[in-house]
Amino acid sequence: MSKEKIQEVTAYAPGSVANVGCGFDVMGFAINEPGDEVTARFSQHDGVAISAIYGENADLLPYRADKNTAGVAVQAMLNALDTEEIPGIEIELNKKMPLGSGLGSSAASAVAAVVAVNQLLGNPFTKKELLPFAVAGEHISCGVSHADNAAASLMGGFIFVRSNNPLEVLDLPTPDELYCSIIHPDIEIRTEDTRRILRKQVSLSDAVTQWGNVGALVAALFMEDYELIGRSLHDSIIEPIRSILIPGYPIVKEEAIKAGALGCSISGSGPSIFALSRGRETAEEVSQAMSNAVKNIGMSYEIYISPVNKNGSILLDQKNIDVENISNQ
Amino acid sequence: MSKEKIQEVTAYAPGSVANVGCGFDVMGFAINEPGDEVTARFSQHDGVAISAIYGENADLLPYRADKNTAGVAVQAMLNALDTEEIPGIEIELNKKMPLGSGLGSSAASAVAAVVAVNQLLGNPFTKKELLPFAVAGEHISCGVSHADNAAASLMGGFIFVRSNNPLEVLDLPTPDELYCSIIHPDIEIRTEDTRRILRKQVSLSDAVTQWGNVGALVAALFMEDYELIGRSLHDSIIEPIRSILIPGYPIVKEEAIKAGALGCSISGSGPSIFALSRGRETAEEVSQAMSNAVKNIGMSYEIYISPVNKNGSILLDQKNIDVENISNQ
Repeated sequence: MSKEKIQEVTAYAPGSVANVGCGFDVMGFAINEPGDEVTARFSQHDGVAISAIYGENADLLPYRADKNTAGVAVQAMLNALDTEEIPGIEIELNKKMPLGSGLGSSAASAVAAVVAVNQLLGNPFTKKELLPFAVAGEHISCGVSHADNAAASLMGGFIFVRSNNPLEVLDLPTPDELYCSIIHPDIEIRTEDTRRILRKQVSLSDAVTQWGNVGALVAALFMEDYELIGRSLHDSIIEPIRSILIPGYPIVKEEAIKAGALGCSISGSGPSIFALSRGRETAEEVSQAMSNAVKNIGMSYEIYISPVNKNGSILLDQKNIDVENISNQ
Repeated sequence: MSKEKIQEVTAYAPGSVANVGCGFDVMGFAINEPGDEVTARFSQHDGVAISAIYGENADLLPYRADKNTAGVAVQAMLNALDTEEIPGIEIELNKKMPLGSGLGSSAASAVAAVVAVNQLLGNPFTKKELLPFAVAGEHISCGVSHADNAAASLMGGFIFVRSNNPLEVLDLPTPDELYCSIIHPDIEIRTEDTRRILRKQVSLSDAVTQWGNVGALVAALFMEDYELIGRSLHDSIIEPIRSILIPGYPIVKEEAIKAGALGCSISGSGPSIFALSRGRETAEEVSQAMSNAVKNIGMSYEIYISPVNKNGSILLDQKNIDVENISNQ
């Protein structure tokens, strides 16, 4: 009787919207697309190697595993394995989402990589246990350790980061009729720059307004209160500053709300703008309104519509080999 | 056949714990005692009059209705009545809780007053509709309009203030096994003073920590996750400053946690200190530990233990008169 051994695994990790208006550095949710794919296989060589990077901006990403978000994440995972013999791993990154878009691109690569390798190794870790490795991977590309994008991409649905150190992430409920429209205007903003322009001090009064909205948004998700979700998205601290970097932001937001969106804000550090709507039909009208607004100011863009993605990262494909056959070869 | 008309109503409104650790100005919950009682009756004279104030500190409270939290609350309510003929109202305030304790004493008076008068008038308002009137009443005594104490005292359980202007308050779930120990050291702190010492600016990093805890505390109440309630109570902004005004605060808190409390912080603006525990037995041990700590530093105190009060304000008593008999007199 022949025994099967996994030879190659491909995983998909979706993009995500971090911050979600009021929830700077603490909230996120996953979307259906865009996202990244990673294929992992065992290698004859020690350590982690990036064997290929595909996609439109592939040439902008480092092949050195210790500089690449996916490579660093996998290495962090291998370091945590409770085994003496650490296998050599080779990964291929199929970059299917724009870089610097504010849609958690680096988190998606890191998550897809650790999910694929975990399966390849026979699942030594639960899905949630993979989070710190993905966060470590993201750190190399963003310079900061925030779990909001990685947790959403990994677990799906809405997530809440109570604390980054020690890392504690909560799964929040995701109302069924919640759809997301995202417009990605064709400009690049570096996460480091968007952090640099933030003020280090905020007024206590603005902070109270903000945590009033954060708590209400969490409650609204539990209560499935769509209108309350909309009212609570309001960001009185970050959006007023970061939106300056996004040409046409006020008009895009205004048109989204006019078209029926519950709320609208910057996705992550931008330049992508997201709007939440109740039901796909409204989300489509909102997407149309946002597209028209961006078109009118002469920018090219991509637009995405999806329900909030409840699955997070998934396995796409797996090739097994027959171990006895191999030993006969 | 004779028709009955209400002649006199007595209502009780419980004290409350505002802020609840991390939730400065946005969270609160009601306790069973202490609390205030108000008796309301119709009067031959126009307007609102305070006819009597009972209780230990009665002489410290103003009889002028436009200076008294209960009087102002009732007047705000009468002003909102959709009627041309506004009845004269007389109220008696039975002050059964300490002033300046951080237990929502003025809110309790205002709430008991509007609940009693609303019943006297045949309930022109729903319970929740009474909140803005109680908040208006509290404004006269505290100089600020925050609904956290008043909403908790009125509605019971945990409440969340998404916004003070416009006023929007959410009812949060209250886990059944949640008990509260409160120690009120015998010193007075004026709310105005405790506001004055707060910094007007906070670091963005502390603010993020705070709203991480606020959102997690809200989630924990929905999830009935007692340990998470404890971890989320942490206040990184207000407590470090206000606790300086409370002699022995660090040791009381330390002893409460050692005795098994989930968490411990300042009640409202202090000097009362509250601790939340799972189950009455633990709450009693925690109360004992807090009492010993305060005793050891030579202060007198009051101690209260109760489950989180889910009822809020209640009617205690009501005297009816026979309207036809009156007209015959």
